[in-house]
Amino acid sequence: MTQSSLIYPQIRKILSGPDAREKLQALFNDLHPHDICVLIEDIPHDEIAQIITAFGIPKGIELFEEFEDDDRKAISKFFSREWLADILEEMSPDERADFVKVLSEDRLEEVLPLVAQAERNDIKRLLQYKEDTAGSILTTEYALLPPQITVREALERLRLQAPNRETIYYIYVVDEERRLLGFVSLKDIITSPSHSLISDIMHKHVISVSVDEDKEVVAKKLADYDFLAIPVVDNDTKLVGIVTVDDVVDVVIEETTEDMLRYGAAGEHIDYMESGPLSIARQRILWLSVLVFVGFISGWVIERFAAQLQAVVALAFFIPLLSGSSGNAGTQSSTVVIRGLATGEVSIRDLSAVFKKEIVTGIIVGSGMAVLAALRAVIMNKSPLLGVTVGLAMIVAVTIAATLGALLPILFKKMKLDPALMSGPFITSIVDVITIFVYFRIAAFIFSH
Amino acid sequence: MTQSSLIYPQIRKILSGPDAREKLQALFNDLHPHDICVLIEDIPHDEIAQIITAFGIPKGIELFEEFEDDDRKAISKFFSREWLADILEEMSPDERADFVKVLSEDRLEEVLPLVAQAERNDIKRLLQYKEDTAGSILTTEYALLPPQITVREALERLRLQAPNRETIYYIYVVDEERRLLGFVSLKDIITSPSHSLISDIMHKHVISVSVDEDKEVVAKKLADYDFLAIPVVDNDTKLVGIVTVDDVVDVVIEETTEDMLRYGAAGEHIDYMESGPLSIARQRILWLSVLVFVGFISGWVIERFAAQLQAVVALAFFIPLLSGSSGNAGTQSSTVVIRGLATGEVSIRDLSAVFKKEIVTGIIVGSGMAVLAALRAVIMNKSPLLGVTVGLAMIVAVTIAATLGALLPILFKKMKLDPALMSGPFITSIVDVITIFVYFRIAAFIFSH
Repeated sequence: MTQSSLIYPQIRKILSGPDAREKLQALFNDLHPHDICVLIEDIPHDEIAQIITAFGIPKGIELFEEFEDDDRKAISKFFSREWLADILEEMSPDERADFVKVLSEDRLEEVLPLVAQAERNDIKRLLQYKEDTAGSILTTEYALLPPQITVREALERLRLQAPNRETIYYIYVVDEERRLLGFVSLKDIITSPSHSLISDIMHKHVISVSVDEDKEVVAKKLADYDFLAIPVVDNDTKLVGIVTVDDVVDVVIEETTEDMLRYGAAGEHIDYMESGPLSIARQRILWLSVLVFVGFISGWVIERFAAQLQAVVALAFFIPLLSGSSGNAGTQSSTVVIRGLATGEVSIRDLSAVFKKEIVTGIIVGSGMAVLAALRAVIMNKSPLLGVTVGLAMIVAVTIAATLGALLPILFKKMKLDPALMSGPFITSIVDVITIFVYFRIAAFIFSH
Repeated sequence: MTQSSLIYPQIRKILSGPDAREKLQALFNDLHPHDICVLIEDIPHDEIAQIITAFGIPKGIELFEEFEDDDRKAISKFFSREWLADILEEMSPDERADFVKVLSEDRLEEVLPLVAQAERNDIKRLLQYKEDTAGSILTTEYALLPPQITVREALERLRLQAPNRETIYYIYVVDEERRLLGFVSLKDIITSPSHSLISDIMHKHVISVSVDEDKEVVAKKLADYDFLAIPVVDNDTKLVGIVTVDDVVDVVIEETTEDMLRYGAAGEHIDYMESGPLSIARQRILWLSVLVFVGFISGWVIERFAAQLQAVVALAFFIPLLSGSSGNAGTQSSTVVIRGLATGEVSIRDLSAVFKKEIVTGIIVGSGMAVLAALRAVIMNKSPLLGVTVGLAMIVAVTIAATLGALLPILFKKMKLDPALMSGPFITSIVDVITIFVYFRIAAFIFSH
């Protein structure tokens, strides 16, 4: 509330009086819409709707585009049908596509007849693209040129196109059937002689993506080539839109959030600060319950060795240490590999190399930890046998943990699943069962000889 | 080796014969440098150096810029002093700044005298900026205009500046002392009448960052405002460079990798596939060893309750379940909060709201898990007392774990430390000690009554 509370009384006064639009514009001067959004995002949604409406076209729509999906949905409930139709017509197509998806079907049906034909068709087409594909993040407001015109003519056309194009810095050259022939940058055009033909200065080797391509792949491609935008083509190689670099940053952040929450077994991404404990609990309980059953298995393994434990109760003192250590080793290697798979540093072809690497790494770190653990057993518990048991178990458990932690995500990826689904809690729980079994098996062997 | 091995024999033949440059250019046709890099990145560094040198200026330098720091360092060892000097002169300034940092001091001293005065000064200045600041990722090749010229004159100047500017799509307007007065986009210039003055069409409200600003903050600002570039100013508000959006994507990916590895207690980022087990072990052993000592504390807690355990050996069966469950709950809440702090969804002001949220969430999920655990104790171990003990311990431990997992990262951030340093393994280990203490304390109370 801090930001909003300062300015809120003033806004209320303006909204309830005459000339709201002029006064609001004076109040916010020439602030960037993002800054206005930050200033007003915490005030009630009905009043945000009033502010946006008062700002009118285009400033109100630029402001509306700054809000998150959830807020947009809540704010739009207070819009009149006519104003909602205006918004749908004037929003940039990629933002519109996102917004339309959060509107209820009833509301959409009610407002669509008021939307101009061209935008209505655009909305219908964009709704067909599958979630998380290039189609879902593309914009149809790109600059186009035919090949057989001069640089001078091109500049004239761009002047006309500029006001309603997402970017005019990359311009795509197409034939009559919208098949992609090449692209030119505005820099190319500015620096070429005015009588040159576009077809002579354009880059003919165009890197494009298909509408069905995963948006994460699109983001990676744009980033790899340092492009400002990448063209999106359909199955007939016809241009259907472009994805711009500003959307890529959002995609990267969003996908990382998804990955991290999956890795933390924390469920889907919901607005944490806005959600009550019940919704948060619902996100978390599934994995926690599944892992309770894995915990039962660990308990059952100890139960099988109850006689052993009864005889040497000190064995129990080392259960948390061994479980914890192997869990930590598994978390380390799985984090490295999951992140490596996401950035491309590790690929599924590396399976056997990773296997060898982790076995040796596991033996090295496991041995170091084994010395510490064994010393503790010998010094504090005065039991060399216990020392040997704990030390051996540590090496074996840590090695298995490091190896499994690294291999399971790669295997998941091989099976076309998200490697991050192989969560830290899942890996530590699985490794726990193995660790306890190894520990008591070694104990049974050593103490019975 | 897959990509490179196909083309490698051909490259060797070209490099050993005459007209290497022409033949290489024919071989790679008009491939994007990124694609050439992917094709040749696995062949020996001395031969990559030969290819880059054969390509000459500017194509060889564009290709060199595609490689990662480690590779650049290895490749540059095979460059002649003269060619290295050429590279330092011709690279884009932000890439050059990164590259200079991986060169040894000896090598740099040897080559700097051969570099032209302007670039030498630029290198020396960029070397002064601290790591991870805006200064470390800025480029000095930005387009500049004075305020009192017309759009027509501006276009003429941009034509001249364009070839060696990182971007001419945002142009900064400065006074004689390089103080930032405003900015115009090339789109503004294209769409304005040719006799307009730049000072009349420029945006006067410029959003800029300071050279000392954390690069993560710079990235976030650029992304929030959907800019293609952001100006960087010194303490006198003089323009010293710009940060472009393509670098932001790299910063976001890099910072995320750092965060995830810290959270996984997996040490600093090293090239995993290129590193041997000893280097990997070195990254991991520190945290593992520290946590071994935390594991000793858990063991010591059990030791204090040895009599209890001796009397009711079945208590041991539930140690892995309780430790695991509370660890998982702590991992979930810490993941959500650490990611929330990174994206701005959670802030340090939210401490008490998070506290309340997690206590209630912990009680809800803990109760659900308690029922499962208690049922297991009652049905399989036929002990209602054990059921009550395990159930109560589960609720208390999970609630403490969820709360601590969420609060510790916020407290770290409050102390100006990276919240991700509060790693998953660290949280589960701390929570483990508490869980075991709570469990045996409850057991001692219940079984002695």
